[in-house]
Amino acid sequence: MNTDNRYLWNHKDLLDVSQLSKEDVHHLLNLAQSFQEINNRPVKKVPTLKGKTIILFFVENSTRTKTSFDVAGKRLSADTFSLGKSGSSINKGESLKDTALTLQAMNPDIIVIRHSSSGAAQYLADLLPCSIVNGGDGWHAHPTQALLDSYALRQVWGTDFSGKTLLILGDIEHSRVARSNIYLLHLLGARVRLCAPRTLLPRHVTQWGCEVFSDLDEAVRGVDAVMCLRLQLERQEAGLLPMLTEYSRRYCLTPERLAKAAPDACVLHPGPMNRGWEISDEIADDPRCLVLNQVSAGVAVRMAILYLLGTRND
Amino acid sequence: MNTDNRYLWNHKDLLDVSQLSKEDVHHLLNLAQSFQEINNRPVKKVPTLKGKTIILFFVENSTRTKTSFDVAGKRLSADTFSLGKSGSSINKGESLKDTALTLQAMNPDIIVIRHSSSGAAQYLADLLPCSIVNGGDGWHAHPTQALLDSYALRQVWGTDFSGKTLLILGDIEHSRVARSNIYLLHLLGARVRLCAPRTLLPRHVTQWGCEVFSDLDEAVRGVDAVMCLRLQLERQEAGLLPMLTEYSRRYCLTPERLAKAAPDACVLHPGPMNRGWEISDEIADDPRCLVLNQVSAGVAVRMAILYLLGTRND
Amino acid sequence: MNTDNRYLWNHKDLLDVSQLSKEDVHHLLNLAQSFQEINNRPVKKVPTLKGKTIILFFVENSTRTKTSFDVAGKRLSADTFSLGKSGSSINKGESLKDTALTLQAMNPDIIVIRHSSSGAAQYLADLLPCSIVNGGDGWHAHPTQALLDSYALRQVWGTDFSGKTLLILGDIEHSRVARSNIYLLHLLGARVRLCAPRTLLPRHVTQWGCEVFSDLDEAVRGVDAVMCLRLQLERQEAGLLPMLTEYSRRYCLTPERLAKAAPDACVLHPGPMNRGWEISDEIADDPRCLVLNQVSAGVAVRMAILYLLGTRND
Repeated sequence: MNTDNRYLWNHKDLLDVSQLSKEDVHHLLNLAQSFQEINNRPVKKVPTLKGKTIILFFVENSTRTKTSFDVAGKRLSADTFSLGKSGSSINKGESLKDTALTLQAMNPDIIVIRHSSSGAAQYLADLLPCSIVNGGDGWHAHPTQALLDSYALRQVWGTDFSGKTLLILGDIEHSRVARSNIYLLHLLGARVRLCAPRTLLPRHVTQWGCEVFSDLDEAVRGVDAVMCLRLQLERQEAGLLPMLTEYSRRYCLTPERLAKAAPDACVLHPGPMNRGWEISDEIADDPRCLVLNQVSAGVAVRMAILYLLGTRND
Repeated sequence: MNTDNRYLWNHKDLLDVSQLSKEDVHHLLNLAQSFQEINNRPVKKVPTLKGKTIILFFVENSTRTKTSFDVAGKRLSADTFSLGKSGSSINKGESLKDTALTLQAMNPDIIVIRHSSSGAAQYLADLLPCSIVNGGDGWHAHPTQALLDSYALRQVWGTDFSGKTLLILGDIEHSRVARSNIYLLHLLGARVRLCAPRTLLPRHVTQWGCEVFSDLDEAVRGVDAVMCLRLQLERQEAGLLPMLTEYSRRYCLTPERLAKAAPDACVLHPGPMNRGWEISDEIADDPRCLVLNQVSAGVAVRMAILYLLGTRND
Repeated sequence: MNTDNRYLWNHKDLLDVSQLSKEDVHHLLNLAQSFQEINNRPVKKVPTLKGKTIILFFVENSTRTKTSFDVAGKRLSADTFSLGKSGSSINKGESLKDTALTLQAMNPDIIVIRHSSSGAAQYLADLLPCSIVNGGDGWHAHPTQALLDSYALRQVWGTDFSGKTLLILGDIEHSRVARSNIYLLHLLGARVRLCAPRTLLPRHVTQWGCEVFSDLDEAVRGVDAVMCLRLQLERQEAGLLPMLTEYSRRYCLTPERLAKAAPDACVLHPGPMNRGWEISDEIADDPRCLVLNQVSAGVAVRMAILYLLGTRND
């Protein structure tokens, strides 16, 4: 492993994986592994961040990710505070800037922000002296998701991803999960394939250093892992359902399709799964599907990042 | 009392009172009594469950019961996390199974679930290795409510309920409170009467071992306690109000009616009370009404159950 | 300073500033200052209120004030519990009295209440043995806001306010912030001016011991501080916007207007600000604007009040 005593984490914020060196990532994931062990103990708590204040500022709803950060923070003994859109005064017409400055005035050590606008986390990081964690901003980035995905893959592949190929399947265009994962997987040495109908591929996808497919049977051939993206069913209107059925017929990951991948290929999904739409029931319940390992990794990875940011001044 | 050093709690979950032996119940209520003393101290906290994770998963709303569990958990030094229907991904079409597995992946020690479907707690208990507490499921069971009711009655009657008669008054058909209480009161030796219009009595009520009445004046005669059930006014539409007035005229517990009970009879109500509907103002404010003792007992009883489940592996 | 070892805080509740002596206020603000120092430490936590239970009962929404109390409570190591309107059973038709008694039955040490009815905090204080903090009741009082405003002014003016003049600008009629501040500023020796259109002035304003103005240019002349009140834009309907534009033209605090105040005049605002309505962008971003100092002071002042109430029986 690349972690040694001379290593120093020197980031105020976690905005995207693109700011991290390979050494940063390995250090962070090794640290997460030691926190994972704590999470399996009867007493799942360390006093490391006692007296630190973490604000979970989720303007875009996601109780699952928020709870994961909340669990992570409390297991490090930090005090956590949740604010949503209605919680903040954004509903009363206050600007993001004023809300951010107000939060800062309460002396938090870390603010985790999820926001529907790409760049919101960067904006707060530039404005505020406290540490900012990007919990997902628009279509831009979702660094803790990518880190937990790599954590889950490391448990299967080991720390060296070179020679491995992963296929990202689904709505790449609107996915911050895809963007952050592509960068991180490349950094760790893996090859990445993308598969989606052309309408769900970004315009400049050819510059991303990935092999791009429209046909799933072709894309899945020989890959070591498939990462299904979540279909945003709640964004679709009933009128689109015929199209969704057609989409699902062509892009749902089924046992027949996964059979074309490498024999020990694993499956990832950021959750929550739409069973029968982007992932079949059989795959969802298959031991090769790592979705629960990802959730579990999520707490450990978030503990690692909160630890690194929360102790950087000590 | 039945508690001695050789006693061992050996339940992974608390799903209903029917799983408990008389010895279990007395042990649990004795334990609650010692926690009640802690709740009256200036420093209301013990370190017993430090480092334990408790998830309060309330798919059906009930802030009162949730807060009671939350207070109980935090006074034992556990970390508590609240998730509601909108909090979980059930709104995004996720199945209860996938939500449950996701929660489990965060390594909780205990999940408290309230759900509108009878059997939801049992389903989670079968699926997950962590402890499940049934915080109320459909019309089926509400074990902590029954236990806190018996705790409140013990403070008046002592530990031996034999020779005592309690009347449950109201919508028996749709009441998990009634079902759990009938079982527990019988176990502890009390006799139980039921009183409701026939339309609000379950079909097989004659097999429950209770005396059944439609006339309140007759039912209340000589009883040692009356347990009023809450009228679910919010489930009724305005069109039903004439019927409600008629219901109230016949079944509201008034001083005149309570005068027919035993001279020292007490009154229970699970709260919140609809004053003037199922319980008169005079009775609600009467010292014989134990509704606040029940709330207080609720915290102590929930501390006892969280303690027993949270330490069973230690 | 007026604090010495013989000082004793002897209030069960904080309902309004009018209950406080000058000595109480100075003691409280000095205490807040020592907590402010804790808030700037890497470890922002003291064990003072460990094992105390604080309920944040916000029937009227205000996540900002609630979060400030929540941060204050947790930094003192208390356990905090939030209940809103939907959280309580008020939605189910329960009376404030029954809700209050139910909360009391959980043995809280302090209940912070925000309520749209003037007098709600007093009602709870009379009813319950635990300490009550008024977090804002109707148009009546908002004592912690007034105390934090005076804390922020003390940082600029020192502890002696005599010879200082502060102008309160805006909707005085509907403002509990104004009422509590007028009392406290007078107690601390400052003079207070009020400026608003006549329709937004209370009927008996002439008995309040303030100079009253309708013309802002006149009112602002020579003052040492201006306190802008928040325009309740969300209470206004679209149909009133022409009037609002006219209001803003006459009463918005701009650099031109502030130039008529004393050279080192400062500006306060309870937040959230409606930039361009009651306060101009330039003033909002000006270093003389203390809005963020006020937020920061809010945590410290609330720590002081929770400390005084939470330890009064120890």
